[in-house]
Amino acid sequence: MIIARVIGDVVATQKHPSHEGRKILLVQPLDLDGSDRGDAILALDSVDAGAGDRVLVVQEGWSAMTAVGRPQTPIDTAVVGVIDTVTLA
Amino acid sequence: MIIARVIGDVVATQKHPSHEGRKILLVQPLDLDGSDRGDAILALDSVDAGAGDRVLVVQEGWSAMTAVGRPQTPIDTAVVGVIDTVTLA
Amino acid sequence: MIIARVIGDVVATQKHPSHEGRKILLVQPLDLDGSDRGDAILALDSVDAGAGDRVLVVQEGWSAMTAVGRPQTPIDTAVVGVIDTVTLA
Amino acid sequence: MIIARVIGDVVATQKHPSHEGRKILLVQPLDLDGSDRGDAILALDSVDAGAGDRVLVVQEGWSAMTAVGRPQTPIDTAVVGVIDTVTLA
Amino acid sequence: MIIARVIGDVVATQKHPSHEGRKILLVQPLDLDGSDRGDAILALDSVDAGAGDRVLVVQEGWSAMTAVGRPQTPIDTAVVGVIDTVTLA
Repeated sequence: MIIARVIGDVVATQKHPSHEGRKILLVQPLDLDGSDRGDAILALDSVDAGAGDRVLVVQEGWSAMTAVGRPQTPIDTAVVGVIDTVTLA
Repeated sequence: MIIARVIGDVVATQKHPSHEGRKILLVQPLDLDGSDRGDAILALDSVDAGAGDRVLVVQEGWSAMTAVGRPQTPIDTAVVGVIDTVTLA
Repeated sequence: MIIARVIGDVVATQKHPSHEGRKILLVQPLDLDGSDRGDAILALDSVDAGAGDRVLVVQEGWSAMTAVGRPQTPIDTAVVGVIDTVTLA
Repeated sequence: MIIARVIGDVVATQKHPSHEGRKILLVQPLDLDGSDRGDAILALDSVDAGAGDRVLVVQEGWSAMTAVGRPQTPIDTAVVGVIDTVTLA
Repeated sequence: MIIARVIGDVVATQKHPSHEGRKILLVQPLDLDGSDRGDAILALDSVDAGAGDRVLVVQEGWSAMTAVGRPQTPIDTAVVGVIDTVTLA
């Protein structure tokens, strides 16, 4: 799991019916200090996240499909939570 | 999931019967500004994408096999949508 | 599996009910000499690890979900043990 | 999936019975222009590929195990086709 | 699959009972010429490998769990063979 910020979304002529009604978010992975880390990626939304939200992202197919509750959905990345606080011990 | 552009295809003496009738596309991963990112990869087509199309690509075996609707197909990457618009918030 | 040190935790407005009651740990991957290696990542706790503990981390969805004993939990990383000793042959 | 060239093979005192009778090939990933890309990897053969062949390689466990038709075989990489032509659009 | 050399082991206060009786090996990935490649990783042993052995390592959860014959074991990496010879064509 990584921390990322929602920075946009993508509209696709999606041929696979399982994606209908789900937003495809564009998310930017973040470092612990909130700065950008690497390239932006795409993730299917499972928690109604919006632009600017800091979110939890899973990056593996089985867990992503579990997140959206549709085992037949061909995705490999999903937003699974909105982050409130990050605490360094 | 990543954004990529279809730049060609590959013909193989495919010994595994589950691949028959499916195109193997050569796709170039893209940055948000449309420039190339890293190396081109191969992906099985599931949406009749053509050369020049900007597409959604999944890169994990289970989700890729789900995309093409053939759980017995040995692939790890698939094209799952054709992109209309990318919106930055 | 990698070796990492627990350096903090994350609280999320977790919409997925399977995460309730589980800590999301912030862990820093380590080199063999105990120095930091790369970026910190998030991992669901399965062994009651605490801040400062040196831990074993799995980084794949199926094994992570197996670790926490909840196949329906959408995670891709989990802490599966607390390390006592590392021996170089 | 990536494109690679068969450059050798490996003989192992393989304790896992499911590997018996299968060649473990050493394959070199290639760029589109046929030059080497990164390090050589190992892949179980599923199509009787030979030294010098340009092949299709899958790099994920479930799809690799599907390729060789043995779900109980512990592999994460397999050769699934011999390439005839690569066409750039 | 990669080639690696066993360079040590790790003892953990392992809370997950499925790991009991299994060695956690520290293995160093190798290049074809036998020199080190990248960082050492951890792998569950499935073939009674010892310090100094050159081994085959799988790095994906499902295949690793298949290797040790315990589908409920939360691991993502396993040693699946001891290498006798590497032949370059």
